[in-house]
Amino acid sequence: MRPSGRNPNDLRKIALTCHYTRHAEGSVLVEFGDTRVICTASIEDRVPPFLKGKGSGWITAEYGMLPRSTHERMGREAARGKQGGRTLEIQRLIGRSLRAALNLEALGERTITLDCDVIQADGGTRTASITGSFVALTLAVHRLLKQKRLKANPLHGQIASVSVGIYKGIPILDLDYKEDSDAETDMNVVMNDAGAYVEIQGTAEGHAFRREELDAMLALAGAGISELMAHQRDALAAAGASI
Amino acid sequence: MRPSGRNPNDLRKIALTCHYTRHAEGSVLVEFGDTRVICTASIEDRVPPFLKGKGSGWITAEYGMLPRSTHERMGREAARGKQGGRTLEIQRLIGRSLRAALNLEALGERTITLDCDVIQADGGTRTASITGSFVALTLAVHRLLKQKRLKANPLHGQIASVSVGIYKGIPILDLDYKEDSDAETDMNVVMNDAGAYVEIQGTAEGHAFRREELDAMLALAGAGISELMAHQRDALAAAGASI
Amino acid sequence: MRPSGRNPNDLRKIALTCHYTRHAEGSVLVEFGDTRVICTASIEDRVPPFLKGKGSGWITAEYGMLPRSTHERMGREAARGKQGGRTLEIQRLIGRSLRAALNLEALGERTITLDCDVIQADGGTRTASITGSFVALTLAVHRLLKQKRLKANPLHGQIASVSVGIYKGIPILDLDYKEDSDAETDMNVVMNDAGAYVEIQGTAEGHAFRREELDAMLALAGAGISELMAHQRDALAAAGASI
Amino acid sequence: MRPSGRNPNDLRKIALTCHYTRHAEGSVLVEFGDTRVICTASIEDRVPPFLKGKGSGWITAEYGMLPRSTHERMGREAARGKQGGRTLEIQRLIGRSLRAALNLEALGERTITLDCDVIQADGGTRTASITGSFVALTLAVHRLLKQKRLKANPLHGQIASVSVGIYKGIPILDLDYKEDSDAETDMNVVMNDAGAYVEIQGTAEGHAFRREELDAMLALAGAGISELMAHQRDALAAAGASI
Amino acid sequence: MRPSGRNPNDLRKIALTCHYTRHAEGSVLVEFGDTRVICTASIEDRVPPFLKGKGSGWITAEYGMLPRSTHERMGREAARGKQGGRTLEIQRLIGRSLRAALNLEALGERTITLDCDVIQADGGTRTASITGSFVALTLAVHRLLKQKRLKANPLHGQIASVSVGIYKGIPILDLDYKEDSDAETDMNVVMNDAGAYVEIQGTAEGHAFRREELDAMLALAGAGISELMAHQRDALAAAGASI
Amino acid sequence: MRPSGRNPNDLRKIALTCHYTRHAEGSVLVEFGDTRVICTASIEDRVPPFLKGKGSGWITAEYGMLPRSTHERMGREAARGKQGGRTLEIQRLIGRSLRAALNLEALGERTITLDCDVIQADGGTRTASITGSFVALTLAVHRLLKQKRLKANPLHGQIASVSVGIYKGIPILDLDYKEDSDAETDMNVVMNDAGAYVEIQGTAEGHAFRREELDAMLALAGAGISELMAHQRDALAAAGASI
Repeated sequence: MRPSGRNPNDLRKIALTCHYTRHAEGSVLVEFGDTRVICTASIEDRVPPFLKGKGSGWITAEYGMLPRSTHERMGREAARGKQGGRTLEIQRLIGRSLRAALNLEALGERTITLDCDVIQADGGTRTASITGSFVALTLAVHRLLKQKRLKANPLHGQIASVSVGIYKGIPILDLDYKEDSDAETDMNVVMNDAGAYVEIQGTAEGHAFRREELDAMLALAGAGISELMAHQRDALAAAGASI
Repeated sequence: MRPSGRNPNDLRKIALTCHYTRHAEGSVLVEFGDTRVICTASIEDRVPPFLKGKGSGWITAEYGMLPRSTHERMGREAARGKQGGRTLEIQRLIGRSLRAALNLEALGERTITLDCDVIQADGGTRTASITGSFVALTLAVHRLLKQKRLKANPLHGQIASVSVGIYKGIPILDLDYKEDSDAETDMNVVMNDAGAYVEIQGTAEGHAFRREELDAMLALAGAGISELMAHQRDALAAAGASI
Repeated sequence: MRPSGRNPNDLRKIALTCHYTRHAEGSVLVEFGDTRVICTASIEDRVPPFLKGKGSGWITAEYGMLPRSTHERMGREAARGKQGGRTLEIQRLIGRSLRAALNLEALGERTITLDCDVIQADGGTRTASITGSFVALTLAVHRLLKQKRLKANPLHGQIASVSVGIYKGIPILDLDYKEDSDAETDMNVVMNDAGAYVEIQGTAEGHAFRREELDAMLALAGAGISELMAHQRDALAAAGASI
Repeated sequence: MRPSGRNPNDLRKIALTCHYTRHAEGSVLVEFGDTRVICTASIEDRVPPFLKGKGSGWITAEYGMLPRSTHERMGREAARGKQGGRTLEIQRLIGRSLRAALNLEALGERTITLDCDVIQADGGTRTASITGSFVALTLAVHRLLKQKRLKANPLHGQIASVSVGIYKGIPILDLDYKEDSDAETDMNVVMNDAGAYVEIQGTAEGHAFRREELDAMLALAGAGISELMAHQRDALAAAGASI
Repeated sequence: MRPSGRNPNDLRKIALTCHYTRHAEGSVLVEFGDTRVICTASIEDRVPPFLKGKGSGWITAEYGMLPRSTHERMGREAARGKQGGRTLEIQRLIGRSLRAALNLEALGERTITLDCDVIQADGGTRTASITGSFVALTLAVHRLLKQKRLKANPLHGQIASVSVGIYKGIPILDLDYKEDSDAETDMNVVMNDAGAYVEIQGTAEGHAFRREELDAMLALAGAGISELMAHQRDALAAAGASI
Repeated sequence: MRPSGRNPNDLRKIALTCHYTRHAEGSVLVEFGDTRVICTASIEDRVPPFLKGKGSGWITAEYGMLPRSTHERMGREAARGKQGGRTLEIQRLIGRSLRAALNLEALGERTITLDCDVIQADGGTRTASITGSFVALTLAVHRLLKQKRLKANPLHGQIASVSVGIYKGIPILDLDYKEDSDAETDMNVVMNDAGAYVEIQGTAEGHAFRREELDAMLALAGAGISELMAHQRDALAAAGASI
């Protein structure tokens, strides 16, 4: 039924390549099938003005797509002179989601910026970005601990994200671009390792969705996120930064 | 328990003043307690480039806050030279929600722009904007029907929106500013008159929310939106534009 | 002769509703007939860089029109990414006019920002804005005096403004939109309560105006401004902030 | 009494050098004492969108200051990414003033752009710009007539401008920078050769000005503008483009 | 002598991975040592306004760096709202260089946009971008030929680029970041396969360079570019797109 | 052979008018034939953030063209809201070139900004700007020495610049606009008085240039720059600021 031949509850092939670039304190290439995003975590020893002198750190995120990460070339946001509404919305979502993983006071007066740059897009770039950013953030925090710049681990939870939707009347997990274009409903779910919700953003594209459809989608999301968390733990363990 | 003395399932005082300004094809002042928003619907006989020649209309929305609608004066977005991420996010949400109320083909090659300008803010400006915009949109469509510029009513559903949240551990309806600032979870729900969901946007501000909390919030939202729809019908009937 | 049936020396119906919104230190809804403007005065305990440490305060103004305050919807300046020349010119005029009412040294190192937002436009928005801003400013200063944050009243004059013009060859007072569109000359006059001029801005739209026309217009303006000042005093007295 | 030793009714040394640059259809270097402005008139065979197909031409103006035309270096507007309010206000004034000199229908579907670039500033740059722009415009129109691209002269009047003010209590003509900085009132007057007013912009910098002061300033302006018009006629005659 | 242990005339390890992403008509990952750039070529069937209807195609380029491609995180140009001078300079250079490889008339009314996005920076990003862009452009042209959208190959030359410099008094080839930071002179050379120069941009960072130093640098560049061209031919042959 | 009748190795008529404007610490009108540029040097007692507290000064440059300095009117960069890539590239080049003339430490914590504004363009505006800027800079430094704000002269070299190119197959010196438009190669060379190169920027417009063509162009440039330096010395000597 699905264009890719997947079962409704199948994730795409997931890959998390740690230390993908060398300069960032944490970096990972995350792949959800053909969707590929570079996530880097950059540590800076300063905080935004609204936090100055309050003894708290900050996590923020920026998101971008290479102009030809998509089927048709998109205009480059730097050349157009501003980031679009979709970009701002996604980077605000990534930032909020990751702040839910970490005790900002325990981080000290530092900012960690998560840059999520989409190299190739095939649907689900925001959920891949959140899932990858958690890994990059963990790598950066691990480095601070190893360098003894932090005494205690400020991370208090694991965060991952996946999309679910209603496609041809059937609830499905982890939509690719073709499915996303035709879906009646599209929902992005961010959860922690206690099975609680950090963000739910559901949008009816075609017709409004009913309560039983919502329940089915949430069940798929919960199972999918558990799988993604196993991938995160494996990748981090292989990189010597177990959580 | 609530700062305002309301019960958990109480809306604030709701008021919808139709024909609040004279130039717009549809206009309404919507009040959710001390939150006051002017919503206008403007009809133009052209569509955005991506719809040209396709025989379909378009609904779009813009949102703004007067600089001193808030406790502290905010910088004016026009003076800063760009709309912030929150503004873009809200106006995208309003536009999507209202498009779910209407058959765009039946509208013909017209654009209806919903302008939501917050005169005074006390929490819930986006849900008030959506609820008011539906009324302004209906007034504008009614005028097109009366002028025989439209033969059939393109509206196929009623749309309203309310916020729900977890405040001091209790699920509550229609958060005001004080509650919103302290809420552990904040969720905006947009529904239609068939009781189905158009948008759900839930964010854990403090700790992640559990499934039973989600269920309780959705129940509150459903009841609140039913009440709001009665207010919408009453206001429209009084303005001679029953739906 | 006038489209509204007014005599050449008639103002429109004037209304000044004090405390129109609740957050601002001073707020008023000013109505010159169908022209409606919300004026708020916001006090901040800092001054612009060029005044830092000089023991002087500052008065500044910002002006905006809701997109559908006009007959045709105008593009939103925040969305276009800049304020137009007309907007900048008007807000500079409002700021200069109000600074003429007040001793900036006596204000102390504070900035009062006057926000004038046009809810509905029917000509004369800048003169209504100045007239309303004086009321909002007085309310804000009154609050500082009442809170004993100021010992002496820094206001040393009353300021109001009205437009005059030549319409079908006849000098008239307080032009509405229809008159303004057809006027041969349009002049905005700002005066103080000593009958002296703070600003005169006269523009020949059709043919240049002669000295005797200028004299007739100035006479109309003087009488109109006296009437407006009586309205200001009444509104302030009713709000408990007599000048 | 005046820092320059001039009498109250003296203009500074006026010079108008026609054909100052070679590419523009009309160009002039205008000097009011140490204030030097290059004015060019550029003809283009198209009109702005709002005039397309209406058989009318357009006159518009742009104004700029070289960064070091002033005592202290100012930031370059191109580098700051926008023109300031003062610049926009001045170029709107120049455009309106020159449109009053010419029958736009008789110009045909053409735009003439007047660029006024201040090489050196010593007060009165806007009045010098208007006075010089009239000369550049006339040169450009003369060329159209000579090339038989126009059959009849669309110019129907001569336009010039000067500043007047109250300095140490005395009305004076054509303020230089030192006088302008200390003036209690500053007024820019634009007149035509019939002695009628095209623009009057008077601003009380210190205290409000009284009616008799206004009258004295207008008398000075009238005499000064007559002198400026003689300079314009001489310069144009010398350039073979008499009016 | 060189920090990397290379001889003065050694290139870094060069790699060109064709078809690195799937959506673009041509794509390559180019590596000059630790410098990694994704180059994509996107074909669009339209030309910029200045070429419309002239029967000629166009080649243009855009360049960007991921915020954490560098040692310290740089601000994202899209977030800052404009591309910096360095970025504009580099993308103009890439565009000019590639236009020298191809007959624009033979391309037909098409635009090929080369996007060069730096994933990781270690010096020489502009020379890597030009060298990689030639490969991406060739892949895109090859596809047009294979699809019979082009009858004849519009490419008439091979283009590659390398940097040379004077480091501690010695002329060296292909500077990495450490060398670049300390070099007295830095020169970027773009050549074609006939051994002629397309661009030479030499800058004295420390002291001015003498004629014999220039000669030595040009000799190194010529030899380095020959080697790079062999890498280009090998990569294209392996990808089935020999030139 | 050349449109102007010049020999291949002839400069245009060169003029350097010192003290062209009165406010700047150094100013000059530089003319290369019909190309006329005002160069001013402005001294400010502060440095950019990256140099604060390092005991070093800074030289920077800005470049602009009056809208009608060219054959066709160009849009004003201040009105378009940004400086184009060509402008940024040229001002970066001017800044780098002049920094090569001066010991920044010896300048002390000062910034000298060179503003190059093109009054009339006929090719070679960037080389005229560099050549004129050296004179303006020297005048400004001379004033600092005379005022004893500097003890030792921080200038350690003389800098001038000229263009060379291949026109109809022949190497020529100092291209005017007509030659520049048709040239096959265009190269800008900046040298010091020791005959060494500060910048070489050569671009093949038509076909790539060969080594012997490069050699011939460099020989022409060297001779031309010697002549320009004599003009610089003469102008400075006449202005009482010998180097």
